[in-house]
Amino acid sequence: MDSLTVALDVMGGDNGPLVTIPAAKMALEKMPYLQLTLCGDKSVIEAHLKHHNIVDHSRIEICHTSESIAMNEKPSIALRTKKDSSMRKALDLVQQGDANACVSAGNTGALLAIAHYVLKMLPGVERPALVSHLPITDSHRHAFMLDLGANVFVDSTTLFQFAVMGSVMAQEVDEIESPKVALLNMGEEDIKGSDHIRQTAVLLEQTEDINYVGFIEGNDIFSGKADVIVCDGFVGNIALKTCEGVAKLVMGKVMKIINENKFTRLLGVMLNPTLKNIVKRLNPDQYNGASLIGLRGIVVKSHGNATSSAFYNAIKEAVKEVDRQVPQKINHKLEQTLVKGHK
Amino acid sequence: MDSLTVALDVMGGDNGPLVTIPAAKMALEKMPYLQLTLCGDKSVIEAHLKHHNIVDHSRIEICHTSESIAMNEKPSIALRTKKDSSMRKALDLVQQGDANACVSAGNTGALLAIAHYVLKMLPGVERPALVSHLPITDSHRHAFMLDLGANVFVDSTTLFQFAVMGSVMAQEVDEIESPKVALLNMGEEDIKGSDHIRQTAVLLEQTEDINYVGFIEGNDIFSGKADVIVCDGFVGNIALKTCEGVAKLVMGKVMKIINENKFTRLLGVMLNPTLKNIVKRLNPDQYNGASLIGLRGIVVKSHGNATSSAFYNAIKEAVKEVDRQVPQKINHKLEQTLVKGHK
Repeated sequence: MDSLTVALDVMGGDNGPLVTIPAAKMALEKMPYLQLTLCGDKSVIEAHLKHHNIVDHSRIEICHTSESIAMNEKPSIALRTKKDSSMRKALDLVQQGDANACVSAGNTGALLAIAHYVLKMLPGVERPALVSHLPITDSHRHAFMLDLGANVFVDSTTLFQFAVMGSVMAQEVDEIESPKVALLNMGEEDIKGSDHIRQTAVLLEQTEDINYVGFIEGNDIFSGKADVIVCDGFVGNIALKTCEGVAKLVMGKVMKIINENKFTRLLGVMLNPTLKNIVKRLNPDQYNGASLIGLRGIVVKSHGNATSSAFYNAIKEAVKEVDRQVPQKINHKLEQTLVKGHK
Repeated sequence: MDSLTVALDVMGGDNGPLVTIPAAKMALEKMPYLQLTLCGDKSVIEAHLKHHNIVDHSRIEICHTSESIAMNEKPSIALRTKKDSSMRKALDLVQQGDANACVSAGNTGALLAIAHYVLKMLPGVERPALVSHLPITDSHRHAFMLDLGANVFVDSTTLFQFAVMGSVMAQEVDEIESPKVALLNMGEEDIKGSDHIRQTAVLLEQTEDINYVGFIEGNDIFSGKADVIVCDGFVGNIALKTCEGVAKLVMGKVMKIINENKFTRLLGVMLNPTLKNIVKRLNPDQYNGASLIGLRGIVVKSHGNATSSAFYNAIKEAVKEVDRQVPQKINHKLEQTLVKGHK
């Protein structure tokens, strides 16, 4: 792989450089072709680099910024007023071609608003979507789900575009030749759901390049029936957060039983890390980040309270998307399907 | 308790009398004040009663019907053409005052359509809702969630009514004095979500009799932050089915880890029944039925493939709602809140 540059919003997230700098160190160690541009307060970054004993700066550039965006800051205010923030600079670098991708654990709403404004949408794309992969029963595979919360409600054209974009993600990132694409609905029958979901189904059925497999219900998100699960951001966000809640509930009950007696408590010690890993994987932006797609550039969102290894995973995800040229492939696929749709 | 009568749709569900008759037997044994009217094919019912050694018919009446509604039958067709079906008769009996409640494991869409047509809505109620209780982290309590799928999308007036109805359910069925009512949303901030959710929040804030606690996200469904969780039927259905999917996924992973090693396998034997119980409880109509509320009568829906004990739980739920006069209480509360709203 040729060298590539990822711009990091070092100050973003609940813990800023405490998390992002160790993640940067890990990424540099594991990916020898990687260059990083660290956006944030120069003196803070330098202190953290020193603290982590990062002395070789040949693959690091620091882009000093004087502002940062608070986690609870209103997106419209952040967009208008924080032009010298670490998040804005990281996105500017992508837009200017000085970085191939941006990774941030900062304020999601601000990231959406600024990325939309700075990078612009791919031609013909109506709305960006947040996508991530979820674990499924077959542990060697994933399911890509989108939109996870970038948009509240969307029309059938946008849902259709989400399906196309998700299909490209599964093809490029997970190398699935012909990803099975499904629409999340409240029943599997054709008559179920809202008008715009049924209209999207009709559009997808007419699209040869998409392996559309129909409606699926919530209980099949993890069954492997689909590689790509499409819904609006409201439903996607609720479903995803519900997953997290259920996983915690189940784990809590399991741990309660385990802690009831001395012998099982011992076994619990063996099980605990694996169990925690399951819960973490059901919280995808904490696990490997969620990608913001549909834009003319690569943006990966890591969880606000991501650990260093989660932030590292998000960097890895960004690198993979650069390597596989995801935005270009999405653009190409959308052009193909749109051209066919107009015939 | 005075004697009360529940009409059973004996033929409904995937297994009809194979499940409903043993459940009826259990209910008669455990609830000495209970009378049952068994709706369905008389000869089939008599054969099953005989098979289960139910010889004392003093608390049983059979209401013969010549038709039954298939699980995949279109609701509108079932409503128009199946006037002598077991489901229709059971609902007719409630409407005529010959039964205090109806329990069915039949076709959900048909049950909704026929119940709506036969029983009619309570004055001022726009739409019925499916409600059930979910387990929460604190194992001594529940959270009531509605709508679980009776309606696709609803406006703020209807969401507000769901909140009021859910609050009454929690008060009457779970005897919570001032149930905490929350709206399910994609964020906790006031600015989040769709217009109609924000409008509902304003209505609830203005209503003194409702202990409205704000927006909650999917991960808090099970945390106990709310006793009543309100959403439209599309979101409710997706969230509920997602719960089932996640619980199965987590269980599968836990059991896989446990079975990997001889010592932990022993633990699996201890954990298995409790874990299975959690999954079952996360599928509430399989566990205790989902109630159809907002109607001028009590209707409890049991799962299509409910076991006898699940169908028995649904009968018990119906009896509790009769005892606590849930429809009357809902009517009263709605009148109160509407009167205040008009001031």
